[in-house]
Amino acid sequence: MTSKNYQLVIVGYGGMGSYHGKLLKDNQNINIIGTYDISEERKTASLVDGYAVYESLEAVLSDEAVDFVLIATPNDVHKDIAIASLNAKKHVICEKPVTINSHELLEIMEAAKINDRAFIVHQNRRWDEDFLTMKKVYDEQTIGDVFHIESRVQGANGIPGDWRHLKAFGGGMLLDWGVHLLDQLLFMVDSKITSVFANLSYILGDDVDDGFQVFITFENGITSLIEVGTTNFIQLPRWYVKGTKGTAVIHDWELNGKIVTQNLGEVEAPKPIKAGQGLTKTMAPPSEKAVSTSDLPAAIVLKESFYENVISVVEGTEEPIVKNEEVLRVLRLMETIFKSAEKNEVIKDFDAVPSKNI
Amino acid sequence: MTSKNYQLVIVGYGGMGSYHGKLLKDNQNINIIGTYDISEERKTASLVDGYAVYESLEAVLSDEAVDFVLIATPNDVHKDIAIASLNAKKHVICEKPVTINSHELLEIMEAAKINDRAFIVHQNRRWDEDFLTMKKVYDEQTIGDVFHIESRVQGANGIPGDWRHLKAFGGGMLLDWGVHLLDQLLFMVDSKITSVFANLSYILGDDVDDGFQVFITFENGITSLIEVGTTNFIQLPRWYVKGTKGTAVIHDWELNGKIVTQNLGEVEAPKPIKAGQGLTKTMAPPSEKAVSTSDLPAAIVLKESFYENVISVVEGTEEPIVKNEEVLRVLRLMETIFKSAEKNEVIKDFDAVPSKNI
Repeated sequence: MTSKNYQLVIVGYGGMGSYHGKLLKDNQNINIIGTYDISEERKTASLVDGYAVYESLEAVLSDEAVDFVLIATPNDVHKDIAIASLNAKKHVICEKPVTINSHELLEIMEAAKINDRAFIVHQNRRWDEDFLTMKKVYDEQTIGDVFHIESRVQGANGIPGDWRHLKAFGGGMLLDWGVHLLDQLLFMVDSKITSVFANLSYILGDDVDDGFQVFITFENGITSLIEVGTTNFIQLPRWYVKGTKGTAVIHDWELNGKIVTQNLGEVEAPKPIKAGQGLTKTMAPPSEKAVSTSDLPAAIVLKESFYENVISVVEGTEEPIVKNEEVLRVLRLMETIFKSAEKNEVIKDFDAVPSKNI
Repeated sequence: MTSKNYQLVIVGYGGMGSYHGKLLKDNQNINIIGTYDISEERKTASLVDGYAVYESLEAVLSDEAVDFVLIATPNDVHKDIAIASLNAKKHVICEKPVTINSHELLEIMEAAKINDRAFIVHQNRRWDEDFLTMKKVYDEQTIGDVFHIESRVQGANGIPGDWRHLKAFGGGMLLDWGVHLLDQLLFMVDSKITSVFANLSYILGDDVDDGFQVFITFENGITSLIEVGTTNFIQLPRWYVKGTKGTAVIHDWELNGKIVTQNLGEVEAPKPIKAGQGLTKTMAPPSEKAVSTSDLPAAIVLKESFYENVISVVEGTEEPIVKNEEVLRVLRLMETIFKSAEKNEVIKDFDAVPSKNI
């Protein structure tokens, strides 16, 4: 497809920076030619991993060999590094959450436009198989028209003990994990948001949220409950999705799950059961012939992998799969969620009054 | 304990009316001496079951042998039958939801007071073992201080096809099942409600709700998510409760479930896992020695059964376990939930501005 070879420098060689090293190890188009990190320990780690070390960001940006800057620093400095890199005529790949607020992203998008360089956010979880399986269920109406989506990630480890639990660095679970779940939701449901209600949890005593529950409604009638938790010693399913003809569940990252659908035609009415201290027909299991259980479908396959798409975007052969306008909308949604939680109110004007800047 | 024998008539001999027949079959203190129902079919059913049939409510109320009227009719006529019965100096046991609105209950409470007769609502699910098990976990801090409670019942049968799907008769899932889950929640959590946000579902096209999700916060910091569904072909757990030291789950009416708690002291940090297209330490399972799994505790035992308590209340030896003030609070909470859902707003003055009538 492409003959050109691109040179990339990783800025911020922590957990995610080194993970990109692994992702790009066998990439035919992109070579990692070095890293830059302010920490001596991480410089050493980079050298151990076989990557040359730059002594300053300026050194990276003034190196004409560099085509791509990959930003994997704490979130609060994404903007300055991104704009400096774009102004130095580098393409930029940026870790999520892209910035701490939507104004910062708008500044970056403007810099990308002026400098005619690509700025692409690593919303890697659009390629998660659990998500793409549920997107298949949604797109192909496997359970009829989907009308309710619950998407959760629940851990029991609290917030990892570095900058992620500090507000000034853009920590907190809404920005860290919420950004993925919301990005997936908006990538799946093509409809305006009509209301947002959120509760953020501060159980662990950090100055950032250690989890949240947010209830989002869409113009097309779909409702959704998105949840991130770090105080959950037992986990609810990763996905729980209801349609007019059935329900789909994915329990975990290993894609354990199933689909149960309603059978058409006359079926025997359910028999009342004793449930606790009462009888119930409503909550009785459907009669045997009333429902069918089946396996989850194969996940849909996106046109290109993240890095294939990066190259195509730079070479002008494909649109970005992760569009900056979409990233901006997710960022604005997170701002709306913070506002809803702070005021303990339902926010209804998220999509009704579009930002003047867009 | 008691030497007296009480005579009871069941008014409304449908599903719940005949269920009370079974409940009272071996009761030493209460005899069912007849039923009254407007339906010829149900009159026949009563005779088949061995219960004499009254030809009118007046005939029941003018029968001096009758001590108790048990009301198991559709909800819209509870009030008139209750007040007529109290005025006829009968004690009254009433099915839930007690009335369609709180004003009706206030009228009944007034009639009970004036006539010095007992009026007791059959909130039978306070005696449900799943609830009393979770109440034990809550009361005894088995998982530390509980800070989040999720209570769900989910069926796949829609709304049963009689008056329960009609608004005029007091149908709908909030009134039908919501009343139980809310009653249990308020019986468990002794704190003022600070906010209520609700979404009612109308997927099935009935003029009443076919389910709901409501998010309730309490002054003591506890948050809760209460849900009833009739379009759920796969069920989430009946109870999912989080505490500062662990999580408790009860899956079903058979009390399958478990408790997972955090171990004290230094434990190994969790190892990052590959989850979808990314690494995560936050959502990795805790290290093996960091948590312990245990069985659910035995349920707490309430002082008396429902009918034992009815007798004690009438004889003045015990307070009612189901207090009318509590039933009234649940009814007002349901009104607040309807209001929140209709306006799509968070309601914060539920306990802040007590009703003048209370």
